[in-house]
Amino acid sequence: MTHFTQKDIDEMHHVYKINLINSCSGYKSANLIGTKSSEGITNVAIFSSVTHIGSAPAILGFFLRPNTVTRNTYDNIRETGYYSINHVHENILMEAHHTSAKYDKTISEFDKTLLEEDYKGNYLVPFVKDAPVQIAMKYIEEYPIKVNNTILVIGEIQDLYLADNLLEPDGFIDLSKANVASINGLDGYTIPKLKSRLAYQRPKI
Amino acid sequence: MTHFTQKDIDEMHHVYKINLINSCSGYKSANLIGTKSSEGITNVAIFSSVTHIGSAPAILGFFLRPNTVTRNTYDNIRETGYYSINHVHENILMEAHHTSAKYDKTISEFDKTLLEEDYKGNYLVPFVKDAPVQIAMKYIEEYPIKVNNTILVIGEIQDLYLADNLLEPDGFIDLSKANVASINGLDGYTIPKLKSRLAYQRPKI
Repeated sequence: MTHFTQKDIDEMHHVYKINLINSCSGYKSANLIGTKSSEGITNVAIFSSVTHIGSAPAILGFFLRPNTVTRNTYDNIRETGYYSINHVHENILMEAHHTSAKYDKTISEFDKTLLEEDYKGNYLVPFVKDAPVQIAMKYIEEYPIKVNNTILVIGEIQDLYLADNLLEPDGFIDLSKANVASINGLDGYTIPKLKSRLAYQRPKI
Repeated sequence: MTHFTQKDIDEMHHVYKINLINSCSGYKSANLIGTKSSEGITNVAIFSSVTHIGSAPAILGFFLRPNTVTRNTYDNIRETGYYSINHVHENILMEAHHTSAKYDKTISEFDKTLLEEDYKGNYLVPFVKDAPVQIAMKYIEEYPIKVNNTILVIGEIQDLYLADNLLEPDGFIDLSKANVASINGLDGYTIPKLKSRLAYQRPKI
């Protein structure tokens, strides 16, 4: 096997390092987080760190680095208390990826891409039109991560919208039926196809 | 679209709810975490919440619920300070999934599955033999998540071992070349194939 020590990683060229470490944890979710500033300017940005934390209550978390492009997302969430999580799918891969470009807070990524704003219920934050899974999230709490100054943002699902053909009778959402994307590293995209669902496991005697 | 409100989610049958909420956040990583107790009993358990938090230093996190099967993993990490993260791949899907069964702490999942222990360097914790990505992790810190009593465990990569054909010249690890798995929900497995790597994005004028 190829072996990198901690010293090797510390001494790597920056670009090599972020490619390697971003792709070493496994496949990641591909989500567009939609927000709106208190001045009414919308924002949409791609994230690969949205993670299920618990089902009762229904809690999702994601990590962001305060001094990067994701700063707008964070500021808007703190200003309004709400955000939307929308799944990236095959038809919008390139537009979704482009939201990683560093736009000023006065510019909406919805104006710079073919992504379209969608509004639901009484929410002021934009959803992403045609995303097969769209989730209205309420900010709950955050944890500053000491070791590297990132922030874990935790929210609760308020409303969940699913494209019509994805839901199985037992509540399972078959993401592959909507060609939902998964991310490998910083810039590798896949459109997984469901292979199998495995049975609930009990100990062998 | 199908619409579930927060009230709908609160009132769902437990099994329907955990299927729905576990599959609503997108595709998840599929990792086996290997540990050893201070009494020398090994443990290996499947996790779908391992997340990249930062590259410099190289930091990964995962969430666990202290009162479930993952308790053994947590106790062992706190006793020894180390753990291994190993990627689930197509050939070991069923064996990896079986580690979700609730075995007593005196029983090693390595004895109840075809998964084999592998040892590297001076680490006392077991790695999973033939896993295409194997990572030696050192415990750094943890955050108790107030809203649902889970714990975010954060560790730093100490050594990274990769199957030989996965690494691209720029540091990117092509997980699909090793048939690495990704998880949809609680029990859906996929073996994604890389579709495309997209270019670094700069703002449009």
